[in-house]
Amino acid sequence: MMEELVFETPAKEALVDITDAVQEAVRCSGIHDGLCFIFCPHTTAGLTINESADPAVGRDIVRGLDRILGDGAGWEHAEGNSPAHIKASLIGSSLTVGVTGGQLALGTWQGIFLCEFDGPRRRRVWVRLLIAGKEELGLSLPH
Amino acid sequence: MMEELVFETPAKEALVDITDAVQEAVRCSGIHDGLCFIFCPHTTAGLTINESADPAVGRDIVRGLDRILGDGAGWEHAEGNSPAHIKASLIGSSLTVGVTGGQLALGTWQGIFLCEFDGPRRRRVWVRLLIAGKEELGLSLPH
Amino acid sequence: MMEELVFETPAKEALVDITDAVQEAVRCSGIHDGLCFIFCPHTTAGLTINESADPAVGRDIVRGLDRILGDGAGWEHAEGNSPAHIKASLIGSSLTVGVTGGQLALGTWQGIFLCEFDGPRRRRVWVRLLIAGKEELGLSLPH
Repeated sequence: MMEELVFETPAKEALVDITDAVQEAVRCSGIHDGLCFIFCPHTTAGLTINESADPAVGRDIVRGLDRILGDGAGWEHAEGNSPAHIKASLIGSSLTVGVTGGQLALGTWQGIFLCEFDGPRRRRVWVRLLIAGKEELGLSLPH
Repeated sequence: MMEELVFETPAKEALVDITDAVQEAVRCSGIHDGLCFIFCPHTTAGLTINESADPAVGRDIVRGLDRILGDGAGWEHAEGNSPAHIKASLIGSSLTVGVTGGQLALGTWQGIFLCEFDGPRRRRVWVRLLIAGKEELGLSLPH
Repeated sequence: MMEELVFETPAKEALVDITDAVQEAVRCSGIHDGLCFIFCPHTTAGLTINESADPAVGRDIVRGLDRILGDGAGWEHAEGNSPAHIKASLIGSSLTVGVTGGQLALGTWQGIFLCEFDGPRRRRVWVRLLIAGKEELGLSLPH
């Protein structure tokens, strides 16, 4: 069992901020403390955490990956989207984020992004929640 | 406690599809729903999820990382395999995948790959399973 | 609930070996078997696992990422640290490591590193532990 979120990506390449949708999945679960596991079941898209305050950061991540990999030539995979596959593996296809007090435990500037590298397309994201009480934490770590 | 899988990688650099071996570990565990955590205890190899239908994708991932990093020169680490270490950190050393109905919850085109960057070698992969009942999921998320 | 570790990073870019601090968090928790989840709540820093025996490996990872991305120009994000944001997404912001017998289940040469890409700064790392008994493992996997 898991929750499936669906997103329509807007362009060939784009970072889509999905923080609110994931937070809503956490809220609806009623879970107070635990872990939120997020998975992208696609091979030319991925998931990352980065700055959500300035949307230019997401555009620079797309730009930076393009500078690194370009579209180039000489790829073996016949569909012509090898750079998108490589970017997906560099970014990764899953995330784990803590849940504290019913909220995603993100840093001040962090948001959760679906990274589209071969769109625009309809993309799915699967969310699973691990409830607390499954967790035990150190109480007296000195440093 | 965990399950150790062992693979002989075939070349200096290669993506080895280990999906069936991981799925067999899930099957033998008898777990129906939960999470599968996979870890690579090596520093010049990693784990990724990408397309398993066309083996050319894995070869293009190797090719793309080589174009990015090459073997270059001017590395400080004296063993001469710094690009392999860097690739391992870019790809990552662990994966988490859902388990639903006793099956790895992967997308249609996804497979799990051990990424060899400094082989051929014998490589180990550690598998741990978290059983469901530990999970609780939102049932009424509207979107 | 989680444990917060704090580190002062030494330079603009550096890999800081935090293995001992994370292991101490595991020890203080009293957990014998389970999973250790580590999260970096920053957008220009990340977490990776790589070789801890030779500190030159960490310096070569910094060097390699700089060769890939440089500081370049033409970024849209006005703070001038877009390469640091991109590196953070390439490296990733969280790790999961098994715990066996009260010890982090790392490979022989592996250590856990906080990756600073826009320092020096005070950086936080959040540690959560999942206790065993939550886990069930295959006992008879043949291969």
